[in-house]
Amino acid sequence: MQYDRILLEHGSGGQLSNDLIAETFLPLLKNPLLERLEDGAVFDVGGAKLCFTTDSFVVHPRFFPGGDIGSLAVHGTVNDLAMCGASPLALSVGFILEEGFPMEELGRIVRSLGAAAKKAGVAVVTGDTKVVPRGAADGLFINTSGVGIVRYGSPLSVRSIRPGDAVLLSGPIGDHGAAILSCREDFGFISRIVSDSAPLNSLVETVLAASPAVHCMRDATRGGLGAILAEIAGQSGLRIAVREREIPVRDEVRGICEILGFDPLFLANEGRMALFCAGEAAEAARGARRGHELGREAVVIGAVAEDRRGRLVMATLISGSREIDLPTGELVPRIC
Amino acid sequence: MQYDRILLEHGSGGQLSNDLIAETFLPLLKNPLLERLEDGAVFDVGGAKLCFTTDSFVVHPRFFPGGDIGSLAVHGTVNDLAMCGASPLALSVGFILEEGFPMEELGRIVRSLGAAAKKAGVAVVTGDTKVVPRGAADGLFINTSGVGIVRYGSPLSVRSIRPGDAVLLSGPIGDHGAAILSCREDFGFISRIVSDSAPLNSLVETVLAASPAVHCMRDATRGGLGAILAEIAGQSGLRIAVREREIPVRDEVRGICEILGFDPLFLANEGRMALFCAGEAAEAARGARRGHELGREAVVIGAVAEDRRGRLVMATLISGSREIDLPTGELVPRIC
Repeated sequence: MQYDRILLEHGSGGQLSNDLIAETFLPLLKNPLLERLEDGAVFDVGGAKLCFTTDSFVVHPRFFPGGDIGSLAVHGTVNDLAMCGASPLALSVGFILEEGFPMEELGRIVRSLGAAAKKAGVAVVTGDTKVVPRGAADGLFINTSGVGIVRYGSPLSVRSIRPGDAVLLSGPIGDHGAAILSCREDFGFISRIVSDSAPLNSLVETVLAASPAVHCMRDATRGGLGAILAEIAGQSGLRIAVREREIPVRDEVRGICEILGFDPLFLANEGRMALFCAGEAAEAARGARRGHELGREAVVIGAVAEDRRGRLVMATLISGSREIDLPTGELVPRIC
Repeated sequence: MQYDRILLEHGSGGQLSNDLIAETFLPLLKNPLLERLEDGAVFDVGGAKLCFTTDSFVVHPRFFPGGDIGSLAVHGTVNDLAMCGASPLALSVGFILEEGFPMEELGRIVRSLGAAAKKAGVAVVTGDTKVVPRGAADGLFINTSGVGIVRYGSPLSVRSIRPGDAVLLSGPIGDHGAAILSCREDFGFISRIVSDSAPLNSLVETVLAASPAVHCMRDATRGGLGAILAEIAGQSGLRIAVREREIPVRDEVRGICEILGFDPLFLANEGRMALFCAGEAAEAARGARRGHELGREAVVIGAVAEDRRGRLVMATLISGSREIDLPTGELVPRIC
């Protein structure tokens, strides 16, 4: 469907985001790297395989349990690099500030951003700051871009996924989305929800070192686990079958979803990833993950099979089967 | 001086921009590459010298004579790479869109961005789009980051400038700033002012190929020629002496400056650069520039000398001498 104006849903990571990319960005910026639609672009420079990625952050509120827009801006871009198998070499940061923004808050955000970069083992090497008049932006927006180096031998891509692959998930889903929601509304009783925002590069390096049979990784950000798996199913033309009972969701997250009418499957995560690897390598990959702080709750949630058309199918708790499409409609704006 | 809130002037490219960097960003993001304060960061990867840079664009109005926010977003980042001596390899683009933004206008901007990238010989390889609710941003902001490769043998840096160096300017100053101003106010009679927005990478490649004695380049964006020369004087601890009568300013630009009380020396340019090279190489560098479409009006505007402290001095038209500091106070917001 064609829209003549941008809707909030165009930024949701769901069907309308994909339409915007397919109908507006790809035709006008045509090139093979962009058309791969991976989390970052990988290309050769001077004998090295370089990865380049970008992400803007507009999360509201700017501070939430488990993080803030500064740490999130580091994690988002470090994780996009990691999903391409790249270790981060350098980050850029671009601030758009609203006139009148408190200097003290800016300091806290930059401090958090710097600490997150340090923890992820990457330096912010270049930056830019723009200031717009009062009312022209809501406080502060951050863009981070990242350059990384890929050392993994085989190509990590949707195109590498094969029938028989196992689908692994690094931990419980929906914590970030639920943490943001719990800040916006006054849910005293579920104040224990903490965002999963975290840098995944060290976990990825551990897993890649342990297994030569990893085919594809994707972090489950906007649109959640449901959106990335549905997208991968569509892109690969394969059937991804997952079991709902294997997908961990914390009780508090389930609670907030029931109250507000969200499905945890489509809630954003900022430190959770899905991984596709050869079926026989699944245990090794899961073991490597579980040995890492951020993968302690890693589980195998399903497998890949041939199909006439790419689709995501979930065996539900009540023994039924549900086909899952890219999300449309209900969404959480400014989640990242 | 300390401020407790962000002022428009913190984004001006003048003294307050430098204070913000020195007092907030550098201490919290501490690392040697960032501290060099060049237009981009240069570091080695797998035998190649890589350059990485970022820039956000908030220009208002989004369309102006000679360009728009899309083409400007390409030129700004390509030029930052070029000033480091880097040929562009890849660009990223991040859009922040306001809910309700017209799809047709987005298409025009993306088309212009794509055309500018093509003209500069670089591809947009990765991107991101965020949508914020109505009122949370003024229409559309763009971040572009760029990766380039440096092939020039000697280091291009403020640190490479030596007493005796010549200072070259690639053409008339203030066209971009005046073009934006003429759009904002209704100046029918000076509608001929066209922004100088252009990609400088090809000009730079021509000049670097012709001369082994180039020491430093800087494009005269926010804050104009005055700001970048004053900044370089301060950073290098040398005296930069320029002659006002050698600095070309179009009559229409001078006109709008007189009416509005601006100094062309501090008006933004988006396709003009200053270049420092060994004095004896100045004619070769100027000749190479003049052979290029974008350097046809290149001139030698001054020279570098020893000084007890870094400062910019201008021999004025009326035979006086004026010391020029980083601009403070009056400024043109959202110029790029």
